[in-house]
Amino acid sequence: MFEFVLHSRKGRTDGQFNNLYAAGRLDTVYQCILTSVFKSHAHRHDVLFHAFLNGPPKPPLHLQVDGDTLFDVRLDELSWEGILRKVLTGESHPGISISKESLQGFIRARATSGVPIFVLEERGKNINDIDFTDTAVFVLGDHIGLPKKDEKFILRFGEKVSLGKQRYLAASSIDIINYVLDGHVLMKYNVKR
Amino acid sequence: MFEFVLHSRKGRTDGQFNNLYAAGRLDTVYQCILTSVFKSHAHRHDVLFHAFLNGPPKPPLHLQVDGDTLFDVRLDELSWEGILRKVLTGESHPGISISKESLQGFIRARATSGVPIFVLEERGKNINDIDFTDTAVFVLGDHIGLPKKDEKFILRFGEKVSLGKQRYLAASSIDIINYVLDGHVLMKYNVKR
Repeated sequence: MFEFVLHSRKGRTDGQFNNLYAAGRLDTVYQCILTSVFKSHAHRHDVLFHAFLNGPPKPPLHLQVDGDTLFDVRLDELSWEGILRKVLTGESHPGISISKESLQGFIRARATSGVPIFVLEERGKNINDIDFTDTAVFVLGDHIGLPKKDEKFILRFGEKVSLGKQRYLAASSIDIINYVLDGHVLMKYNVKR
Repeated sequence: MFEFVLHSRKGRTDGQFNNLYAAGRLDTVYQCILTSVFKSHAHRHDVLFHAFLNGPPKPPLHLQVDGDTLFDVRLDELSWEGILRKVLTGESHPGISISKESLQGFIRARATSGVPIFVLEERGKNINDIDFTDTAVFVLGDHIGLPKKDEKFILRFGEKVSLGKQRYLAASSIDIINYVLDGHVLMKYNVKR
């Protein structure tokens, strides 16, 4: 299982918004869901996407999207606006869950389970030099970046990984990581993800 | 200059639509614009994105987005719905142009200028084995795929390139190509794109 974690500084924690951009940039969350779990005409069944929403009115909130059980979805932002509003209002949708959990609590739990944890950072170890197994958690900041205190906390359990000298959008970073993992898994286990 | 070309089978060719999904999947066009020209807090100044729209009422239409001159834009689908409706209605927006041109006409012109042309295809030559210069055109199909007659035409001037065994979304393919080109340009010219 590969997991992508987005820290959303202002992401709205209820369904009261006119659109995803206005909801504390939940459009970034949508874009990361798109690149985390969707392939052409298929989902990635070995991916969990997590967003930690820290906007009003009741932060933090943990939004999880499971590529394996996700169902009845399209790829456009407008349909995800409807889905996110629904689950943030307390209704359910297959493959999506909401819980009252902080990023630090989540990371501590994963680290306790022995899952390797990586924080995206330009000055980290190049992703192509890392010998992945079949589990990993990748932590990304939104357009504002990861808060220093959270980064410091996470790095007690993990290490920095770099995609090179370029500064990519969070959603693009996820595409690149999935691409690198595709090659890695194929080479190491001789199976397609 | 690197150029991404999306063939949109049903993309609406006027501004009469309620949302991008309903406009013959112009949401796919939006997603490809996002991954073609946007980095974190910056545009890719060496990228042109092209969509060839073949939906009603007046196909084909060539939509071009220039990462260098693009201005006054956000990253969310909703704002791009407004921009695309505007330019498809005949109004102007900095960095975006609309013309009456077909994909085949465009490819013929680029080939005449000596620009290397690549068609994304699982069974092509692996992208990591190609020695790129500083120009290239990459042609991608939408969720339905490139029409056979267009692919055949384009392959008279170019070659198939592969991102591996995975079938990626068009937008994800562009992220991966940009990532590969970033590494290539850095290694070959010792400059960041």
